[in-house]
Formats: sequence, structure tokens, C-alpha cells
Amino acid sequence: MQTAWEYRFAHRIQKMGSSVIRELLKLTEQPDIISFAGGLPAPEVFPVQEFKQACDYVLEHFGAQALQYSTTEGYRPLREMIARHTSRYSVPIVTENILITSGSQQALDLIGRLFINRGDFIALESPTYLGALQAWNAYGAQYIPVPADEDGMIVDELEHALRMGAKFIYVLPNFQNPSGATMSLERRKKLVEIADRYGVPIIEDDPYGQLRYEGEHIPSVVALDSAYRGYAEECYSGNVIYLSTFSKLLAPGLRLAWVVAPEQVIRKLVNAKQAADLHTSSFNQYVAYEVAKGGFLDEHVNVIRATYRERRDVMMEMMTEMFPSGVRWTHPKGGMFLWGVLPEELDAAEVLKTAIERKVAFVPGAAFHPNGGGDNTMRLNFSYSSPDSIREGITRLGTTLKEILKKNGSARAAGG
Amino acid sequence: MQTAWEYRFAHRIQKMGSSVIRELLKLTEQPDIISFAGGLPAPEVFPVQEFKQACDYVLEHFGAQALQYSTTEGYRPLREMIARHTSRYSVPIVTENILITSGSQQALDLIGRLFINRGDFIALESPTYLGALQAWNAYGAQYIPVPADEDGMIVDELEHALRMGAKFIYVLPNFQNPSGATMSLERRKKLVEIADRYGVPIIEDDPYGQLRYEGEHIPSVVALDSAYRGYAEECYSGNVIYLSTFSKLLAPGLRLAWVVAPEQVIRKLVNAKQAADLHTSSFNQYVAYEVAKGGFLDEHVNVIRATYRERRDVMMEMMTEMFPSGVRWTHPKGGMFLWGVLPEELDAAEVLKTAIERKVAFVPGAAFHPNGGGDNTMRLNFSYSSPDSIREGITRLGTTLKEILKKNGSARAAGG
Repeated sequence: MQTAWEYRFAHRIQKMGSSVIRELLKLTEQPDIISFAGGLPAPEVFPVQEFKQACDYVLEHFGAQALQYSTTEGYRPLREMIARHTSRYSVPIVTENILITSGSQQALDLIGRLFINRGDFIALESPTYLGALQAWNAYGAQYIPVPADEDGMIVDELEHALRMGAKFIYVLPNFQNPSGATMSLERRKKLVEIADRYGVPIIEDDPYGQLRYEGEHIPSVVALDSAYRGYAEECYSGNVIYLSTFSKLLAPGLRLAWVVAPEQVIRKLVNAKQAADLHTSSFNQYVAYEVAKGGFLDEHVNVIRATYRERRDVMMEMMTEMFPSGVRWTHPKGGMFLWGVLPEELDAAEVLKTAIERKVAFVPGAAFHPNGGGDNTMRLNFSYSSPDSIREGITRLGTTLKEILKKNGSARAAGG
Repeated sequence: MQTAWEYRFAHRIQKMGSSVIRELLKLTEQPDIISFAGGLPAPEVFPVQEFKQACDYVLEHFGAQALQYSTTEGYRPLREMIARHTSRYSVPIVTENILITSGSQQALDLIGRLFINRGDFIALESPTYLGALQAWNAYGAQYIPVPADEDGMIVDELEHALRMGAKFIYVLPNFQNPSGATMSLERRKKLVEIADRYGVPIIEDDPYGQLRYEGEHIPSVVALDSAYRGYAEECYSGNVIYLSTFSKLLAPGLRLAWVVAPEQVIRKLVNAKQAADLHTSSFNQYVAYEVAKGGFLDEHVNVIRATYRERRDVMMEMMTEMFPSGVRWTHPKGGMFLWGVLPEELDAAEVLKTAIERKVAFVPGAAFHPNGGGDNTMRLNFSYSSPDSIREGITRLGTTLKEILKKNGSARAAGG
């Protein structure tokens, strides 16, 4: 008997074509595989004791409020804390500039819901964050990829995208996922200037800004926009929507992130969020506030930095030692990802098949390129695996790459 | 200086026309007002001690997993528990039929995202749940209201809506928000039969099903659909998407709800949810599982029932005593709301203005009618206020209504 679902919605509920990459990545969940494919923080740095104390405190003192429905905007003391924290970086932010979201993924979704009409163009770095593409594909977005290098989006190429009619610009200036690149100060300033000239808003996605392992902090695009516009106002009302998250500073399992935006944009995002999930868990907001208040985050981020810096360094050292010549990779100054570029003739998806047989995994880079390309690229996560696992995993991957290149070389020699 | 937001998105970020009702309801947050306007559970019944123990236990034993990213479908033991629980009511449910959502509001949103195209018609009870209208208005839904009485949707009138081309049917069979009505067994069976005949799926929203204060449990529409279709399968694959939530059984501040649906529908909802917020807080899912496992919910729901039953009874007794003749109201057998019908000539929004001056509030019923009507109706919440507050509040409201009716009567006498 055919169900009403099958009768009415066959086109909506049919099985997806099986994705080869999806199937491959499922294999990476086997326990004997060392996977650099995920994007997970290290659970060793979760402040479990602090969470325990905070849960106790919140339930003891604020049980009735923390377990109750609350406002869509978010828990006011948490928003105030974020406003104060952001203001440290010379952005004139008030509580009304802040919306708490259920992870940054929700912020991306709400932005899509509010600002994207089917067929609209978005200018973004290529490669770029997969979660943003997933969020905005649902609204029928199209993309104008702007080339990027180790200094981030090549802003000189951006004007072309804006002349083509991009509706907004999406950038991840710090330790980009997937490339690890950081946009230079000069380019950030130019980005602000060009965006203003064309009247095109900017979405600045900054999940990793605090996780810098070397070099000096570079002002965020929202701070530079604020300075550029020379605001005397107390309240930010410029061209940037800035996104950040507690997922990398505290724990992703809370699903807590925030948006900084002009108040009129926040108000509309609040309306959209109300229809989407009413509000983000009040309990988690109370708990995060209790853990974070009193300066704990500033201490804790040092623990995270030390842990991830070591893992990044081990990964880069091992790559230098084990990878064949002809493979290049980025030197990320922070974040969680490192980006590898294989010789042109290699397909990273094919390499992954062999790598999984050798019990090591990564994400082929093509998926991060919205309009194709990047078949010879790969993303490697260094935050989740222990230094020993990284040593073993990169050894396995280096061996795999050498074998493949050798086989290809022989084939070419035989064929030529 | 005009911002890029103002330049590009003026139509999206302009101020909403100020809503009179919205402004009035803001006033109800004043501490000296007794408000029956909200839809909040009583914080006195939140199991705070159990939450404390559960948080401790989860962080002690599962800190690394509960604070980490997790799957979009939800925490498997929680899904298994829900499947077992639902199966008690003769619905053949397996874990793959369950998706955990960030509150039922998100479930409504994901359903809209997946199944509604701009201009599509949805058949629903009038009045109906405001959150569903908010979720689906965002996708351009239109509504075919089906009349309802104290036995719920008048199913005989439904066929008209289905012949008009309704894409799905939305019902709240138990202690409906806002009307408090419960759909009879006979109508539920007929609903299942008609929906199947027209090949139109049903969304069954059941946040209050467990909160029955009198009478016998009536099988859910999903259970009746399952029986009607005579499935031998282990796995539900019928015509109904069933929604329920922990918001009324444990605490709304967790934002935890679930969807029961055919596996192919769940898979598509999972894809939509992944783009919307990746997954629901893993920590909250672990905590809810710890609190709920071992049969705690079955005990706890008795505490909630006793508390709310008393409040409902006090409210109805006081209404009988204090309300002027010509005002009618429902006798809800459970849930959190009671529905009042004023004499035709009264506008509940006008009554609210006077009521707020008398320091008592409710929600005028017009907002719950998607296509207009219901100007003389009102929703009263009885779960949140203490019995003493209810006595005082209904006294104030009764006085207000008597005054208004008297004034109207004099005006008519003078005018006629």
C-alpha cells in the first residue's frame, strides 16, 4: 500500500544518490582508523569540572528560570558578557547587537532565510566552509568563488564578484576552515573599503579567532569596519554580521554561538529564530555564563592553544619528514585545520580510498569548492588526535602517498 | 551614512508595524499583573534535584561524549527509550523512526522547510497553535481552517478542505492549544480513514498527551493509523508525522522534543536539520536520558497532573462564580489551556486593554485563527499561576467583564 508520503511527496523523500565520499567517510568511524577527517575539538580540553560546578550552581540558584522558556534573543547576562568581551577589540557593541544562536550553523541558516532569494549570488573564498554551503544551498544560493591564498581572500579579485551582483560577501578571516589561511590586515582593510563602496554587506565567520598559536592578533573585519566608518555611536550599525561560537572555547555539545550585527538586523534575525526554534536552551546559556564569567575563558583558551599548537607542530614536522616531494601544505597560524595540495595529476578522493585501506583518513578538498575544482586538495584536522596518533597517522598517509606517486611514475614510465 | 544593510535589504530589515497586541502583551510582564497570557509550565514541578544528579552523573561518566559534537538524529539511547515508550501505545516504532529536535518548534519548521511550497494549502483546526502558523507562514503556507468543537476538528468538514487540495492536515488531538478541546476516538478513526482515502498525510502535534486530568487515554492518531493500515512491519511507515516534547514533562529550557515518522521521512528531516543546526545539544540529550530512564517520568507526570488538575479546577470554579452570564468556556480534560467565548459583540482585544488596567491578562483569541474570526474569544493558561493567583486573577477578570457588559448594556439602552 502506497503511503500518503509516497503519493504526495515522492520527489521530496526519495533516497539520495549514494555519495561515494559519504560512504568512504563512514568507514573512518572504524576504531582502528586514525581519522584527520572530522572537525572535532579535543575532548581532553573540555572543562568538565567547571561544567559540573556551574550546573550545580545554576540549578541551586536559578533552577526555575534556567529550566523555563526564555526570550529568543538569549540570556541577557550572557549577551552582556559577549558585548563587553567584543568591545575589548574596539568594536562599539551593546547587548542589543547580540543574538544567541543554537550553534553558528543556525546563524548561517537564519542569514540564509532572511537574505537569500533563490538564485542570489554570494561572493566567498574558494575553498570555503562546507556548513555555510549546506545552509545556503537550502535557499537556492549560487556562488561566486573568489580566489584565496595563504593571506586569505585575494581582495583585488573581489570587485569582479561584486560587479557580477553578489548580494553579500562571506569570509572566514582567521585560520580558515578548510584552508587554515589567515587574511592579512591589509586585505581586511581593503575588504571593508570595497564592500562599503559597492554597498554589499559582509558575513564574517570567526569560530577560531581566539585559537592563535603564533603571531599577533589581527583586528576583525567588524572592528575595522567600525573604525573605517568612524562611528561615534555606542552601538554597532555598520556593514558586517560577525559570527562566533562557544563550540571551540567551551564545548560544541552545548550548541551555543552568537551573532554580532546592527540592531535592526538582529531584530529580524530574532523574528526568524522565533519561528525556527523559539530560543536556544536557557539551561545551557546559564551554564555557559557561569563557566565563562570571572575570566575563566581567558585562562582556559591558553590550555587549548598549548594543546593544539603542539598537535599542529607535530603534524607539520611529520609531514616534512614523511610526505613525498610534490606535496605542499599550508602553515596555519591557528585553528584546527591544515590544507594539503597534491600533485595536479592526483585525485584526493582516489587517494582516500587507498588511505582508508592503510587505516588513515582525511577529507578530499573538492567538497569545499562550491563551483568545482580542488580535486587534488585535502583537509587534515590536527585538533582531535593525540600527538602519537598524529605521528602514526601521518606516517601511514606519507607511505600511502609515496606508493601512489611511485605507481603513477612507473605507469607513466611504462606508458611513455 | 547609509549602511549596506539599508541599501541592499531595506525591505527585509524595515521595522515591523507595531502590533497592538504585542505591545499590550509586553505590559503583562509587569510584576503586579496576574497573567494567564503565557503558555509556561509551573516551575514548581521542574525536577531540579533529579537534573542536578543527572548533570553530575553525565559529566562524571560521559563528559567527553556529552560535550562533543554528535549525530543529527540524536542520542541513540534517548531515541531507543522514546521508541520503547511509544511502542507501549501499540505503535510499531523503532529507533530509525525517531528524530530528536530542538523543541517541537524546530520540528514544525523542518516540516515546513521540507514539505511546503509557497502558496500550498494546509488543512487545520481553527483556532490552532500559533507556533505552527509562525513556522509555516515563513514558507508561504496558506490555510484551510476546518471548524472544531469540544470534540476537536469536525472531521466531516475535512473532506471539503482535502478536495480543495490541502497538502497535509495538522491536528492537535489532545487538550488543544489554544482551545483545550480533545478529539474523540470516533473522529480520530475517521480522520485516519479520510486522510488515507485522499492520500494526504497528517501532522499530529501532541505536546500534552500525558497531561490528562480526567477520562481515559484515547489512542493517538499515529497508533490508529498504524492499526488501520494493519501493518505487520516492525517499523512505522504510515501516513502520520507525530510530534511530542520533553518541554511539558521535564522542562522547556532544555529545548528537547522528538518526531515520530516513517524512516524515509526521518531521513529527509535529518538532512534539513543538519543544515539548520547540525544537531540538538548532546549534553541536554544525555541529561534528559539520565533523568527519564528507569521510569522517573511515569512518577513525575503524576505530580504534574495533580498540580495542573487543581489549577484547572480552581480556574473553572472561579469562572462559574465570577464570570457574567453570556460568557462560555471549555472544560479541558487536560493540558494547560482553557478557552473562553465572550458575547458576540465584545472584542477580546478591547477587553484585554481594560483587563490590563485591572492587572490581569490573557491572549485574545483572534491570533489563533489563521484566516480571521474569533474576535470574541480568549485563551487562558492555568498551569503557571498558583491557585491563589488564579482566584484573584479570575475575580479581577470577572469584574472587568461585568463592568464592560454593563457599560455596553447601558450604551445600548441609551442608544435604543
